[in-house]
Amino acid sequence: MLAAKEFRLTKLVAASPFRTREEREREREEKREAVLLAAVRMFNARGYHATSLDDVAASLGISKPTIYHYLGNKEQVLVECVNRGLAMLRTAADEAADASGTGFDRLRAFLCRYAQINMDDFGRCVILTNDEVLSMDSATRFRARKREIDAVVRALIAEGIADGSIAPVDVRFASFALAGALNWPARWHDPDGTLTPEQVAEKLVDVVMNGMAPR
Amino acid sequence: MLAAKEFRLTKLVAASPFRTREEREREREEKREAVLLAAVRMFNARGYHATSLDDVAASLGISKPTIYHYLGNKEQVLVECVNRGLAMLRTAADEAADASGTGFDRLRAFLCRYAQINMDDFGRCVILTNDEVLSMDSATRFRARKREIDAVVRALIAEGIADGSIAPVDVRFASFALAGALNWPARWHDPDGTLTPEQVAEKLVDVVMNGMAPR
Repeated sequence: MLAAKEFRLTKLVAASPFRTREEREREREEKREAVLLAAVRMFNARGYHATSLDDVAASLGISKPTIYHYLGNKEQVLVECVNRGLAMLRTAADEAADASGTGFDRLRAFLCRYAQINMDDFGRCVILTNDEVLSMDSATRFRARKREIDAVVRALIAEGIADGSIAPVDVRFASFALAGALNWPARWHDPDGTLTPEQVAEKLVDVVMNGMAPR
Repeated sequence: MLAAKEFRLTKLVAASPFRTREEREREREEKREAVLLAAVRMFNARGYHATSLDDVAASLGISKPTIYHYLGNKEQVLVECVNRGLAMLRTAADEAADASGTGFDRLRAFLCRYAQINMDDFGRCVILTNDEVLSMDSATRFRARKREIDAVVRALIAEGIADGSIAPVDVRFASFALAGALNWPARWHDPDGTLTPEQVAEKLVDVVMNGMAPR
């Protein structure tokens, strides 16, 4: 009896024009994602200053208050975009820290992923967003999160030097050189070009890790 | 008689409260330089958008129309700053093209200079100025000048490969990797820090040219 009643109730709910809490939450999340993606692409293409939330809203056929509802004001939207990119980098760093193999191999795998993320929408936004457009508070938080990722690169270099797979380089300058070389495609890589982010990442990582002097 | 008269005229001119044409031109050039330097430092520190010519004028104790008089409007001031940086890079490239030695050595010398310029006021401005703040016309011109400098880097790499001093790397990606690594200090180098631009340049160039794999 109880089972039959529950079945009927379930059917009733499914046929209802009112969505379940789960459905409403999923829909809200999908809309938030759509706004974020439209915003990050416009920030990356035109620059943060030249982008207005009105333009972002227009590109989605919605109004600016709808964006406020899902994400907040323009700086809050930018902060969320940069957070997203930093979270992707953080995940890649955690994976590299947990991986097995020589320091050189683990560094190489991480850097390929790092370069790829920097050619992706949210990773590009991390690179293209200069501190001065952020509030003091956000800038401080972002610098701290970037330092955490830099610490992983330095640890991998140090481990590689310890296990003999990496030459005894200056760890700090090696991490700076790698970061510069692999942040750079965020500015010039053409997503519609012939080379995929994976190919670009691999070629750049090869040059910086193996150098240019003949062996 | 004539000589004595000329002597008297010269003395008269030197004592005159009216400056000679040469003096006026030199003074004009000095003032123009001072405005340019004040502007480029403010653009680099605060960002172009966050800088007003009123602030630049105030830092020199002059008025905005004085800046208009010497350099023009805000975009014209920026264009002049970027031009100055590109001219420094161009001179370094010409010197590298005329130098003797292996491709590796000439590339190394050029890249050290390149990295140093990128830590200097006008070089930093070249790196920190994104295309989207420039007019279409200026952006096109600047891209062309940057491509000329990139062409010198590629030619040096190709010459090094030909003379055996550089490994047979992918020339295009090697130049991208080098540019990225050596543009990067424009964003993080602290002029008041313990390392001079020369030291930073040398350490970075060593890492990217010699790589991290043990030999």
